[in-house]
Amino acid sequence: MTLDQNWFTETSDGFGLALKTTARLHEEQSEYQRIEVYATESFGNLLTLDGLVMLTSRDNFVYHEMLSHPALYRHPAPRDVIVVGGGDCGTLREVLRHDEVQRATQIELDERVTRVCERFFPELCEANDDPRATLLYQDAIAWMRDAEANSADVILLDTTDPVGQASRLFGEAFYRDCYKTLRDGGIVVAQSESPLFDMELLQEINQGLRAAGFDSVQVLPFPQCTYPSGWWSATMAGKNIDVSNAAELRRCDLPTRYYNTELHQGAMALPQFLREALK
Amino acid sequence: MTLDQNWFTETSDGFGLALKTTARLHEEQSEYQRIEVYATESFGNLLTLDGLVMLTSRDNFVYHEMLSHPALYRHPAPRDVIVVGGGDCGTLREVLRHDEVQRATQIELDERVTRVCERFFPELCEANDDPRATLLYQDAIAWMRDAEANSADVILLDTTDPVGQASRLFGEAFYRDCYKTLRDGGIVVAQSESPLFDMELLQEINQGLRAAGFDSVQVLPFPQCTYPSGWWSATMAGKNIDVSNAAELRRCDLPTRYYNTELHQGAMALPQFLREALK
Repeated sequence: MTLDQNWFTETSDGFGLALKTTARLHEEQSEYQRIEVYATESFGNLLTLDGLVMLTSRDNFVYHEMLSHPALYRHPAPRDVIVVGGGDCGTLREVLRHDEVQRATQIELDERVTRVCERFFPELCEANDDPRATLLYQDAIAWMRDAEANSADVILLDTTDPVGQASRLFGEAFYRDCYKTLRDGGIVVAQSESPLFDMELLQEINQGLRAAGFDSVQVLPFPQCTYPSGWWSATMAGKNIDVSNAAELRRCDLPTRYYNTELHQGAMALPQFLREALK
Repeated sequence: MTLDQNWFTETSDGFGLALKTTARLHEEQSEYQRIEVYATESFGNLLTLDGLVMLTSRDNFVYHEMLSHPALYRHPAPRDVIVVGGGDCGTLREVLRHDEVQRATQIELDERVTRVCERFFPELCEANDDPRATLLYQDAIAWMRDAEANSADVILLDTTDPVGQASRLFGEAFYRDCYKTLRDGGIVVAQSESPLFDMELLQEINQGLRAAGFDSVQVLPFPQCTYPSGWWSATMAGKNIDVSNAAELRRCDLPTRYYNTELHQGAMALPQFLREALK
C-alpha cells in the first residue's frame, strides 16, 4: 500500500516508521528548528523536530525512564543533576521524582520546545515548577565548558540525533567538560541511538567517553517503538565509579512503568554482536 | 512525506513499518496464502505472507535465536525437538546447530513457503538436508493431537499471527496436546507477539499455557525491528521444569549473533508494566 498525507512518516536508510495522524495541532519555525505537534490515531500526541520523531504520549516512558533512573539508582547519593537538551522535560520530571535530588539544572537550546511541550505534553512538564529545578535556554557546550569543576553528581545527555549543532554533544571534547564538571563518583549518561542502525556511532561514543577519562562505560539497550529500528540505547560512564556493578544499585523505590532494578541489571547483559563490537 | 509504491508498508492500529524495495523477486498465491519476496535497499530480501512481514535477511537472526536457544539451553538434554510452522526453516537451522538434538521434526502447513525460502533465503535452509531433520507439510493441530505422548523434549511454536488458521495454535486445546506430547521436563515455546501492542494476547497465552498444565511460564522480550512496534516476545513454559531458573541454564557454546547466556538471564527480568500485567 502507499501511505498518504494522513500518515506522518520518517525514513532513513531504506527503513520507515509511520504514525497515522488525525490533526496537525501545532507548527512553527523557531530560531533553531521546525517544531510540529500532531494528534495521532493510536499514539496520543506526537512531537517532531525538523521532521523527525522526538516523542509520542504513548511510548516516551521507556526512553525517559531508561535515560534517568539507571544513573540515579547507581549513584549512591545524587544531589546535583544536570540535563543537557531534554526540552520536552520528560527526563527532568523523572529526575525530580528522586527525593535525593536537591538541584536539577536543564540546559536546552530552544525555549520554544519547552513552551510547546507545556501545552501539548503537560504531563511531562508537571515538575517544571519544582523549586529544585532550574531551566536554562542556552548553548550547553559553552555552559559545560564554564561549569564549576566537581559540582555535579549526574549529567544526562538527552540530545537530538548527532547532526548539525547537536553533533558536538557527542564528541570527546564535550565529554571532557562533563568529566570535569562531575564530582568524583559522578555518572554521565548519553542517549546513544540504535544498536542495529548506528553501531559505528555507539563505538565512537564508547571510545570518546573513555578517551575523556571515564573509567567504566556501560551500554543499556531498550525498545523504543517510534525511533528508527524500534531499538535504542543509553550509554552510562563513571568517573571513578563502576557503572557496570550490578550489586551496588540502590533498589528502585518509585512507581515506574518500564524500569525496575532487575530490568536494569538484566539490560547490562548485551546481545552477542554488541558485546563483540564494544569489546 | 508520502511513501509510494517503492516502499513495502505494513500498517496496524495507526502504526506503520516500511522498507524501501528495489525489486519484487517473487509473487505467488499458494493454496493457503499470498507469498511475496522483495529485494530491499538495506534489509536484504524480505518475505511477506498475505502482505505481512515474515522476515528480512538483515534482522531475522534475533527472532530465530530467541525462539530456539533459550529452551534448548534450559533443557538438560534436548534430543527430540518439534517445530510447528517455521516454514522459512531459520528456527530449524538454529535447532540443528545443537549436537544434543537427535531428531528435529518440522510441521509446516504450506510447503510453498519452504520452497520459496530455499531459493531466496538459502542461508536459512542450509540444515534442511541434515539427516536428523524431518520436514512435514500438514496441519499441525491434527499432527500434535495424534502425536505419541511423552515423545518430545522441546516444542517450538514458530507461527504466524493468531488470525485465521493460525489462531488455533494459540489456544488451550492445542497447548494441552503439546503438554501431552512433551516428556517430563519438556519445554514449549510460543512466539507471543508484541509486549507493547498485544498485551491482551500475551496474557491469554500465559493463562492458556497454565490452564493446559504447564507449571512454569516465562516471557522473554526481544527487539525485532521489522515486526509491529519493533519489540517482540517468546513465551516459554515447562512441564515439571522451572523455565525461570537462571542458574540451571547450560552455557551457550555456539557462535551466535544475539543470544548468549547472560542475555538470556537478563531477558527474564521483565519491564515493570509487563511484570504487573502477567502477575
